[in-house]
Amino acid sequence: MLTDNQISDFSELLGKDNICIVMHKSPDGDTIGSSFALFYALKHMEKNVELVCSDEIPEHFRFISDGQKDFDMLFEPDTVVSVDIASETLFGNKYGYLASRVDYAIDHHFSNTFYAKKTILSSSISSAGELIFELFSAANIEIDSYIAEKLYIAISFDSGCFRFSNTSPDTHRAAAELLKFGFDASSINVKLFDSTSLAQLKLESEVLNSVKQFKNNQISMVTVRYSQIERLGVNENELGGLTSITRRIAGTVVGITVREKSDGEIKISLRSQQESPLPDFDVSKVAGKFGGGGHIRAAGLSMRCSVEEAERKIIEAVLEEWERLYDNPGE
Amino acid sequence: MLTDNQISDFSELLGKDNICIVMHKSPDGDTIGSSFALFYALKHMEKNVELVCSDEIPEHFRFISDGQKDFDMLFEPDTVVSVDIASETLFGNKYGYLASRVDYAIDHHFSNTFYAKKTILSSSISSAGELIFELFSAANIEIDSYIAEKLYIAISFDSGCFRFSNTSPDTHRAAAELLKFGFDASSINVKLFDSTSLAQLKLESEVLNSVKQFKNNQISMVTVRYSQIERLGVNENELGGLTSITRRIAGTVVGITVREKSDGEIKISLRSQQESPLPDFDVSKVAGKFGGGGHIRAAGLSMRCSVEEAERKIIEAVLEEWERLYDNPGE
Repeated sequence: MLTDNQISDFSELLGKDNICIVMHKSPDGDTIGSSFALFYALKHMEKNVELVCSDEIPEHFRFISDGQKDFDMLFEPDTVVSVDIASETLFGNKYGYLASRVDYAIDHHFSNTFYAKKTILSSSISSAGELIFELFSAANIEIDSYIAEKLYIAISFDSGCFRFSNTSPDTHRAAAELLKFGFDASSINVKLFDSTSLAQLKLESEVLNSVKQFKNNQISMVTVRYSQIERLGVNENELGGLTSITRRIAGTVVGITVREKSDGEIKISLRSQQESPLPDFDVSKVAGKFGGGGHIRAAGLSMRCSVEEAERKIIEAVLEEWERLYDNPGE
Repeated sequence: MLTDNQISDFSELLGKDNICIVMHKSPDGDTIGSSFALFYALKHMEKNVELVCSDEIPEHFRFISDGQKDFDMLFEPDTVVSVDIASETLFGNKYGYLASRVDYAIDHHFSNTFYAKKTILSSSISSAGELIFELFSAANIEIDSYIAEKLYIAISFDSGCFRFSNTSPDTHRAAAELLKFGFDASSINVKLFDSTSLAQLKLESEVLNSVKQFKNNQISMVTVRYSQIERLGVNENELGGLTSITRRIAGTVVGITVREKSDGEIKISLRSQQESPLPDFDVSKVAGKFGGGGHIRAAGLSMRCSVEEAERKIIEAVLEEWERLYDNPGE
């Protein structure tokens, strides 16, 4: 449920013009889908509106951006709106300077740093897409099939097609309303979740074959080296699925994916799954120790060191939190 | 939407006693979940009711059957109800004799053969679970968290966690209603979809590495030999995920999985995905040529021959239908 403040902040936004909508760097299905939905809703209101993103839209997400790859600023905005951006660093390089002049941040990350003048934040909601759906409903903004499809994409992407624990009855209700517009949701979900090139599938199987497990196989760590990506010919843009690959190993409570990028940076993704009766393992807490962030069950960070050192550091931090939580809970 | 006839047939069923509910052979998430939901709803009405299934519940589905593995007939029923069973052959061996005396068939397969005295069939609905949810709503049957969870499992299983094209606005509305009961849907979906043993993951990667592709990679065929299953130590019950593994290969319109069982029987699963602007490829039509059946996008059949012969026969039949549909559509 939205608060009155959130609704009035959004109404205020709707009164503005010359608006620039900012997506986060390394754009994903939620930031692209919900930004496009907001963009077209504002267009329909005859606003002057533009979209920007510091990074290129990866090829497999261009069905969301209608083929658009790069975004240039078309005019100097009076109002800046960020969508799905938790902190200033996530604005990226090209449009990083906008971070200090955001008027409205529309976000669902509980790690949001309140960098904006006004923050419309609902951290219990599945996605920026679901939040914008609720804001549109509250503001009686009529949507069409095009906007409905963009919102559906955003929601489906961030809820893992309704399978993650951020999926609530309201998430399904939003999907029910949106699906009424009759777009082909099944082929969207194939594009988002089921479409893997053979090279990717081969990389996945190599990665899974080298899994390291700890704490009675409840912690699984996989490592992807840049040499593997290169040898198999996998596009670096196609690597999104690897961040949650450890979910697929039965019994995994905490999953760690260590990935070496072409420039030597090490990206680490952390995932957790609730295994009752265990209390939740908050991966954003571990990520935070290394300057990263995210949600309780999905977080990320990056390091500049060797693959081996990154593995050692992250497993140490995860084990420390594990032991604090589960092995010596009284301490 | 249910018809008045369907609602009155279901009300009639609710007036009966000494009821036996039959699940289909090789039981899956939908037949188990919806049968258990119906069983407990009838129990709450103080009926004498029992559940049977010709085959054992596979280990990975026993979280749905509350650990129960086998089902014996506890009493001679006055009324027999089949749930999610399209044809007589799907009753299996042990309880095959019940097929000729079914009073009510509750089903969602458009290939249903009308073997029952009364058939409550809605072939446009995602799952037997969604159909039973609608019947419960129409008959004002109050459900509890236990029943809601069983129905959610059935719906999520058969809709591929809301990603398949059988997912409608009503499917999401049902999920929204059911999720209100507060059970842990995320861990259900991990059990249904994301929980794969390392042995299974290794088998999957072997299988995907040997894919054969036809018609510009739009038809993908994978083969699983019993010797692989044995060598990797995969439980034969864990092989359900293989039937849709071809969905994961980008660009696949028709997927074929050929699997050799321990007794030499060859099981073949067919899957299709819509790639607009192509017309739908109805895999149940191809399966029907070999005595199998199913839905437009998911069907199965079995053969008794060598793996090589099975591969040859099925690819021939798929190519024939492909050419009829797409290459020479005028003929």
